[in-house]
Amino acid sequence: MELQGKVVVAQGGGPTAVINQSLVGAVLESRKFPQITKVYGALGGVSGIIHENFLDLTQETTHNLERVAVTPSSALGSTRDKPDEKYCEEIFKVFRAHDVRYFFYIGGNDSSDTVRIVNQQAEKSGYEFRAIHIPKTIDNDLMVNDHTPGFPSAAKFVAQAFSGLNLDNRALPGVHVGVIMGRHAGFLTAASAIARKYPDDGPHLVYLPERPFIMEQFLKDVKEQYDKHGRCLIAVSEGIQDGEGTPILATLQQTERDAHGNMQLSGTGALGEQLSNQIKEKLGIKRVRADTFGYLQRSFLGCVSEVDQREAREVGEKAAQFAIWHNIDGSITIHRTGDYSVDYRLTKLEEIAAKTKLMPDSFINKAGNGVTDAFIHYLRPLLGDQLSEASRLRAPQAAKILKP
Amino acid sequence: MELQGKVVVAQGGGPTAVINQSLVGAVLESRKFPQITKVYGALGGVSGIIHENFLDLTQETTHNLERVAVTPSSALGSTRDKPDEKYCEEIFKVFRAHDVRYFFYIGGNDSSDTVRIVNQQAEKSGYEFRAIHIPKTIDNDLMVNDHTPGFPSAAKFVAQAFSGLNLDNRALPGVHVGVIMGRHAGFLTAASAIARKYPDDGPHLVYLPERPFIMEQFLKDVKEQYDKHGRCLIAVSEGIQDGEGTPILATLQQTERDAHGNMQLSGTGALGEQLSNQIKEKLGIKRVRADTFGYLQRSFLGCVSEVDQREAREVGEKAAQFAIWHNIDGSITIHRTGDYSVDYRLTKLEEIAAKTKLMPDSFINKAGNGVTDAFIHYLRPLLGDQLSEASRLRAPQAAKILKP
Repeated sequence: MELQGKVVVAQGGGPTAVINQSLVGAVLESRKFPQITKVYGALGGVSGIIHENFLDLTQETTHNLERVAVTPSSALGSTRDKPDEKYCEEIFKVFRAHDVRYFFYIGGNDSSDTVRIVNQQAEKSGYEFRAIHIPKTIDNDLMVNDHTPGFPSAAKFVAQAFSGLNLDNRALPGVHVGVIMGRHAGFLTAASAIARKYPDDGPHLVYLPERPFIMEQFLKDVKEQYDKHGRCLIAVSEGIQDGEGTPILATLQQTERDAHGNMQLSGTGALGEQLSNQIKEKLGIKRVRADTFGYLQRSFLGCVSEVDQREAREVGEKAAQFAIWHNIDGSITIHRTGDYSVDYRLTKLEEIAAKTKLMPDSFINKAGNGVTDAFIHYLRPLLGDQLSEASRLRAPQAAKILKP
Repeated sequence: MELQGKVVVAQGGGPTAVINQSLVGAVLESRKFPQITKVYGALGGVSGIIHENFLDLTQETTHNLERVAVTPSSALGSTRDKPDEKYCEEIFKVFRAHDVRYFFYIGGNDSSDTVRIVNQQAEKSGYEFRAIHIPKTIDNDLMVNDHTPGFPSAAKFVAQAFSGLNLDNRALPGVHVGVIMGRHAGFLTAASAIARKYPDDGPHLVYLPERPFIMEQFLKDVKEQYDKHGRCLIAVSEGIQDGEGTPILATLQQTERDAHGNMQLSGTGALGEQLSNQIKEKLGIKRVRADTFGYLQRSFLGCVSEVDQREAREVGEKAAQFAIWHNIDGSITIHRTGDYSVDYRLTKLEEIAAKTKLMPDSFINKAGNGVTDAFIHYLRPLLGDQLSEASRLRAPQAAKILKP
C-alpha cells in the first residue's frame, strides 16, 4: 500500500559545493510520485522544522531547481543545533501536524543520528514514517561509505590550491604552511598531495589528525626538507593533536567552543600563525608564511568535481526512491565497485550515526608525515577529468661567461 | 639597421595567474626574428641576471612553452631584490658580457624602475640596448594603464570566493571577514562586490586602503548591517590604514618588514583575527569568522579570466615587437578604447616607474565602505564570460499549523 503524505527535506551541518545537488535530486524525484502531496524544504535545518519554517518546493520551477543544484552551499540554510531526545520530539510533533511521512536529511554523522532518533519516536507512536539520511561532508568521515559527497569537490579545491602554492613557493622560496579543515579525519588535508607532479613538487610534508603531532619531529622534518629543496611546502590539518589527543592549537592558546562542545578550529588563522612562529624561532628561517584555507574550501564558486556533482545528485534521488519503495529508514551509502564505478545502498542508521571514519593506515606513510600511493589511487578518480595541470620550463641552462 | 644580439626575459615581484603568458608571448615573438641570436630567461628575476643564471629558451619546445603559458606563477622564479644603481651596474655588466641587446622585464612599478635605471646606464656607456617593461600586478596599481595583467584573474578569484562566502554566511549566519591583498590600492578588495546578485547579498561592507579606517565607524557599520540582515559579510584590504596612514595591523601588533622596507601584511592572518576580536568584544556577536585569502588569490590553479590570459600574452608579444622595431625603451601600457576593447601602447618608463595608481574617487561610495556602479561597470568585462553564478530557491513559504 502506498504511503500518502508530505516530504520534508533539510540540510544540516557545514555547507559543501554539491549539497544542493542532493536537495534537488530528492525534490525532483519525490515530485514524480502521486502519493507525495507536497515537498517541503526546511529553512535552517532541524531548527526550521521545529519552527515550521518550510518552503513549499512543490511550487518551485524545475529550471530554478537546476540552477540551485549547481550553486554551492546549503540553499535551505543550515544549523549547528544538535537535537537531543526532547528536540526530536518537537520535530516529530511538527511532522505529525503537517502529515509529513517522508523525511530526508542531508548531512554528516550528527545528522544521521537525528534521523535515527526521530524515526525511533515515530515507531514508538505507531506513526507510519520513512526517514532517510543522505550523506554529505567535506571531511569524508562517514562509516561504510567509500567516500562522501562534498569531499571530492573540496579535495579538488585543496589540490588546485596546493598546485598554486607549490608554484608560488618555487618562485619565491621559503617555508609555506597551508592549514586545511578536518577535525578528526585527514582525508581533505591528504588531498593536497595530488598537487605533486614533478619529483621535487610540494607539499613536501603532510600532517594529519590520525597521527600524533610532535613539535620537535615537525621541526626536524621541516629542516630536512628545507635543506634538501631550499624551500618547503607543508599541508597541516586544523585538527592535528598531540600524543594525548589534545588539539595542537589548544596547547598553544585558548579557543572557542560551539554548541556541540567542539573546539573552534576553523575561521581562525591561529594554528598557521603559531606553526610559522615556531619555524621562524626554532629554525631561524626568515621567509615563513601560512595560509589558512578557511571557508573557501567548502563553498568556492566554480571549483567542483563533476563526479561529485553526479553522485551528490544520485544519493538525493536514491533517498526518495528507497523511501517511496517501502523502506522504513536508513542511510544512503556509496560503495566503490570498480575503477571507477559505484553503487548506492541503504545502510542501517546505527552503522553511520555519530561514528567517525578515519584514514586507514594504508593511506598514511610510515613516518606519519605524508600519504601513500594507495591514497592517491583512491582519490584520483573522485576529482573528475577537469583538473588543471602545472608545467615547468625544461630548457637547458646557458653557459656563464663572467664567473663560469 | 637591425640590432643583433641576445634577448633576456625576467619576471619580478609576486607571481600572478597569467605572468607566464607574458613570458611566452615575449619568447615566441622574439624567436621569430633572425637578428635575435638567443632568447634567455633569467632564473629568479634580476638576481638571476647578476649571477648569470639563464635558461636558454631558444632550446625550449613550443609545445612546452604553451603549457607553461597556462600555468600560474612565475616559471622563471622571482625575487624580492630591489636593485639600486650599483646593482643595476652589475646587471649591465652581465648584459654586455653576454651580448644582450634586448631586456624584457615583467613586473610591477619597482620592476619598471629597474628597467629605467639599466637603460640609463646603457645610454651612458653608448651601448646600443632596448629595454621594455611588461606590466604585471594583481594590485592593478600601475599608472597610465586602464588595468594590469594579473589583476583580472585575481579579481575573478576574489569574486568567486566572495560568492561562496556569501552563500556560506547565508546558510550559517554570523559575521564573516575576508581579508584581501592590496597594500595601497584597493582594486582587488573592491572586486569582491561583483559577488552580489540578489539585493541582500554580501559583501555588505568593503574597506579599502584609499579611505581612512576608523575602528568606531567600522563597528557602527557592522552593527547596522548585522541588524538589517541578521548576518554581515565584509571585505577588507590588508592595507587599510588609520587617519595618519599607519596600517591598521601595525596599530594592533608588531609586524615584519621585507627587503624593500615594506611591512609584511600578507602571509599572516593577524588582521582578520584582530578585526574579529573587536567585533566579538565590542558588539557582542558570537559567530564571527575571518578568512585571509593569502597566496591563493594570486596563483590558484584553474581560476583565470580568459580576457586576462589573452592580454597578458599580448603585452609580452608587443614588448618584443616594439623593441625589435627600433624603440629604445618604455613600458607597455593597456588602454581601454571601447566597451570592451583595448589598445597597447609604449609609454615612457618615467610615467610608470615607482609610482602607484589608486582607486579613483568615482569608484568608491561616499561613506567609504563600498564601491560604486562605475567600478562594477569598469571591472565586469575584465573577468571574461566564464563566471559561475549563484542561484536561490524562490518557492513560497508554507503555512504554519502549530504556531501560525
